[in-house]
Amino acid sequence: MPTTLPIVKGHGTGNDFVLFADPEGRIELDDEQYAALADRHFGVGADGVIRVVRSANIPEGAAILDEDPAAEWFMDYRNADGSRAEMCGNGIRVFAKYLERSGLAEIPAGGTIAVGTRSGVRDIQRSATGYQVDLGRWKLEDEGLVRTRGGEVARPSIGINVGNPHRVVALASRNELHELDLTEAPHLDPVPPEGANVEFVVPADPMIKDGVGRITMRVHERGVGETLSCGTGVAAAALAIRYWAGPDAPNHWQVKVPGGMLGVRMFATQDGEHVSLSGPAELVFSGTITVAGDE
Amino acid sequence: MPTTLPIVKGHGTGNDFVLFADPEGRIELDDEQYAALADRHFGVGADGVIRVVRSANIPEGAAILDEDPAAEWFMDYRNADGSRAEMCGNGIRVFAKYLERSGLAEIPAGGTIAVGTRSGVRDIQRSATGYQVDLGRWKLEDEGLVRTRGGEVARPSIGINVGNPHRVVALASRNELHELDLTEAPHLDPVPPEGANVEFVVPADPMIKDGVGRITMRVHERGVGETLSCGTGVAAAALAIRYWAGPDAPNHWQVKVPGGMLGVRMFATQDGEHVSLSGPAELVFSGTITVAGDE
Repeated sequence: MPTTLPIVKGHGTGNDFVLFADPEGRIELDDEQYAALADRHFGVGADGVIRVVRSANIPEGAAILDEDPAAEWFMDYRNADGSRAEMCGNGIRVFAKYLERSGLAEIPAGGTIAVGTRSGVRDIQRSATGYQVDLGRWKLEDEGLVRTRGGEVARPSIGINVGNPHRVVALASRNELHELDLTEAPHLDPVPPEGANVEFVVPADPMIKDGVGRITMRVHERGVGETLSCGTGVAAAALAIRYWAGPDAPNHWQVKVPGGMLGVRMFATQDGEHVSLSGPAELVFSGTITVAGDE
Repeated sequence: MPTTLPIVKGHGTGNDFVLFADPEGRIELDDEQYAALADRHFGVGADGVIRVVRSANIPEGAAILDEDPAAEWFMDYRNADGSRAEMCGNGIRVFAKYLERSGLAEIPAGGTIAVGTRSGVRDIQRSATGYQVDLGRWKLEDEGLVRTRGGEVARPSIGINVGNPHRVVALASRNELHELDLTEAPHLDPVPPEGANVEFVVPADPMIKDGVGRITMRVHERGVGETLSCGTGVAAAALAIRYWAGPDAPNHWQVKVPGGMLGVRMFATQDGEHVSLSGPAELVFSGTITVAGDE
């Protein structure tokens, strides 16, 4: 059945999303309809689509409310092909801004709001640049080699898992970063079982200034291609560079991506070290679209 | 000054546009604001932006009204970088649909509507698949060679000018077409003074069915990259294949592009042979955006 939806388009450092509110969980779109919304030429166009739904009104929400009864709202995230995704580090900041702007929720001054996602509850707070989200625990994985299209050498990389798998490669200069050909997926050796996003990182000069680490990166997302920004990739890049930099490296990083600047912090919690991501969230325009359906 | 605009997003075979009405010619956006609207991640996203303005209310319109006093409406077309463009074969069909849908104009049954563009007046009529536009006269230009990225051979091409310059290359098989690497601009020899769009074309089997020529093409647009569709490129491709096919070739062609199907007709007029383009025009969604400005 065709469905007419009020939508809002937003982005976080150029990683962009179509959002719509469905508090009662009554709007059922199939994968094809989600993909039609995300199509950049035939639809609204975005990296992903976010349905804003009360946790109580989505099947995945029961486990969320068990984990944290305060997680009233759930981020039902879809990739551009319509498939479900667990989390999106840039998307959840835009989600928070949408909640606040539309009056559905408010983040108390100095406090946090709990948001349900398919990878569990995430705590979000306001930050100087927009919003900060606690991405939870992370994990060091295997080393490997990465060769980009047309590249003459395979470069060493380290695996970092931030809920999803990443391979991070350090480069010596901005020029080297600029000249990388990311029009094809980099070849990974060994091949990770579920693939990986690949981050290429260059330290700023000096890398550490006023106690803050500074790096620039480009990213190739599995199944997507090069993107302007990848939230978990930014966290993985900072974690990898801190690992290589040794025990005196800072726990606060600024990461420049093609779409803007993001902040990463590592901090101790009762269940181990967490990593957080902070940065801007923008709502760009609102509109109405009728999504065709074949029922 | 920030400007709040009601916009409509539309496309013709995937070639997509942001449209807004400014009948009185009062909305002045600078190139940067047009580019911001067209940005796919930070704005609405489109191949181009179309301002719908009365010819009497735009400086370029005086010459238009001299040429044809019936050309009440002018298609003020901007490229995605904000620069002015003369004409767009897919855009003008979407322009016509916008005029009709918004009640600004009506195309009489069996008749045409005259629309002003920076390359003169264009006549549009309804067609079985949407709208048909007379692109005017065309011109055969020089032969040359075209080599695509990673290509082992330079292929022969012919130059066709349909208001803008094209180079058309014939390929032997769909497989060859499919495997072309168009992630970089093809290398042209000789280099045309203003560059050229390059069309790669394969005939269907049989090429001519029921008196209609049938071809499939991919296109690389200068300054843009590979696109889903290029209206003038479709016309150029059909003209080139007809030229190669010899005197018995038909004057009606169907051209399949990645974004859909378009029709091309060649027909005699008092001022020489004209070529027309026909195909669908879709309006996808409407909305409101506030465009930032620095005045």
